[in-house]
Amino acid sequence: MEEPALTATAQIQVRFSEVDSMRIVWHGEYVRYFEDGREAFGRKYAGLGYLDIYEAGYTAPIVDLKLHYLRPLALNETAIIEVRYLRDEAAKLRFDYIVRRDKDGEIAALGSSVQVFVDEKGDLSLNTPQFYETWKERWLTK
Amino acid sequence: MEEPALTATAQIQVRFSEVDSMRIVWHGEYVRYFEDGREAFGRKYAGLGYLDIYEAGYTAPIVDLKLHYLRPLALNETAIIEVRYLRDEAAKLRFDYIVRRDKDGEIAALGSSVQVFVDEKGDLSLNTPQFYETWKERWLTK
Amino acid sequence: MEEPALTATAQIQVRFSEVDSMRIVWHGEYVRYFEDGREAFGRKYAGLGYLDIYEAGYTAPIVDLKLHYLRPLALNETAIIEVRYLRDEAAKLRFDYIVRRDKDGEIAALGSSVQVFVDEKGDLSLNTPQFYETWKERWLTK
Amino acid sequence: MEEPALTATAQIQVRFSEVDSMRIVWHGEYVRYFEDGREAFGRKYAGLGYLDIYEAGYTAPIVDLKLHYLRPLALNETAIIEVRYLRDEAAKLRFDYIVRRDKDGEIAALGSSVQVFVDEKGDLSLNTPQFYETWKERWLTK
Repeated sequence: MEEPALTATAQIQVRFSEVDSMRIVWHGEYVRYFEDGREAFGRKYAGLGYLDIYEAGYTAPIVDLKLHYLRPLALNETAIIEVRYLRDEAAKLRFDYIVRRDKDGEIAALGSSVQVFVDEKGDLSLNTPQFYETWKERWLTK
Repeated sequence: MEEPALTATAQIQVRFSEVDSMRIVWHGEYVRYFEDGREAFGRKYAGLGYLDIYEAGYTAPIVDLKLHYLRPLALNETAIIEVRYLRDEAAKLRFDYIVRRDKDGEIAALGSSVQVFVDEKGDLSLNTPQFYETWKERWLTK
Repeated sequence: MEEPALTATAQIQVRFSEVDSMRIVWHGEYVRYFEDGREAFGRKYAGLGYLDIYEAGYTAPIVDLKLHYLRPLALNETAIIEVRYLRDEAAKLRFDYIVRRDKDGEIAALGSSVQVFVDEKGDLSLNTPQFYETWKERWLTK
Repeated sequence: MEEPALTATAQIQVRFSEVDSMRIVWHGEYVRYFEDGREAFGRKYAGLGYLDIYEAGYTAPIVDLKLHYLRPLALNETAIIEVRYLRDEAAKLRFDYIVRRDKDGEIAALGSSVQVFVDEKGDLSLNTPQFYETWKERWLTK
């Protein structure tokens, strides 16, 4: 039986400075939107925010990022970023993302990210860090 | 016999504002670096810059973007963005990217992008726009 | 007797991508925070948002911007941007700004901006545009 | 007799992502342009770059920033940022800036910045740090 997915949502309102000369959100801004989603996830499922990771002696740099754009977002529109945690036995953090326009629920963009753990010496962590094991025990169904 | 690839390069120097609290370039900044590469390509192979496309009555929004990060870039480091045009029979623009650290030639990041053509009415162009056909005839080996 | 000031507030939460290698918000990000404040003002006192101005046939570019930094903002902190409209008989939009840390109410930054009106031909509007006169009549005490 | 001013220049080319929906450089991007100018200054007059300051055990946060906009910059235009060091007996770094359009030499923007020195404990340095005294002795006329 599949475990229920861990998800969180963040809401953004398109800023003037995010809009390009085509009068739509510049495609690079979605990288920030995904980050807003991840931070919302880290607050909801305590222990996976940037500061939690940092305090445990690690950083979690992005190593893979994919974005797929379906519909534009315009100035002042609001959008919902839904972020979903994807289970991975390796020492990696995987999320995928859906950005929906608030006005009609249509998908503006999809994406995914993979993060690894790097310790204070700058070395890639091949084993799951202890803080992440603890987090998994707390939040994931056995 | 395979035709030689069309490539162009741009050089960037990492700015203070691009560096995050891990003291490396924030992963979202590479979206701008890729854009620098595409603009260099558009200048070298005249007729594919943002303004050329716009003057022909089109925009070319990004619909797919992939980034793969291998090594960090630090403050004041310079990097070379190599952009390569990928032939596609469909009405699409495909590029891939290599970002190399200038100091040792090591690859910092790889990526790819796909753009489509949208006309002035906002409709997706299923056929190759005339200006792009002309560009292909000029720059691509038959 | 002095008329009561028109003010609006916006709340922001510091994003990872806004923080620099000193682990505080990069000073340039406050320009966006001020913009968030102005947009909140435009929503509260209907008719002065970027889109309202645009639909009236104008743009309102910033011609002066001042920022004064007092205390840093760190990752995940929230801040309140208070924006205040300053009356000016000339065809100008003047605002000043206070950015307060939510946790202690201390001022993180102060600032001010001046905007002019430019018409569709790109000419500076020396007289107050009609839409702005209308806005003043609605919102300002005689 | 007045000493000759210490100045440096940086060149930028307007990027697509820097342009707003008015098809001109978004006003907040000039904060980055000024930073490009300061970094060029730090390279020319060795010892005042961000990393030099950091290695001396200090950071130099901006406490005041003023921007005055005169003419727009459009996509693909190049501009020259001229940065000038202003002597100050206090423990402060003062610069002013001129951003000129390359095509006609006209001034796009002017500005100024003030930085203070903060030591590793986070305290404001009221006295001129030793590394800055050394820098002054090297580069400023007695």
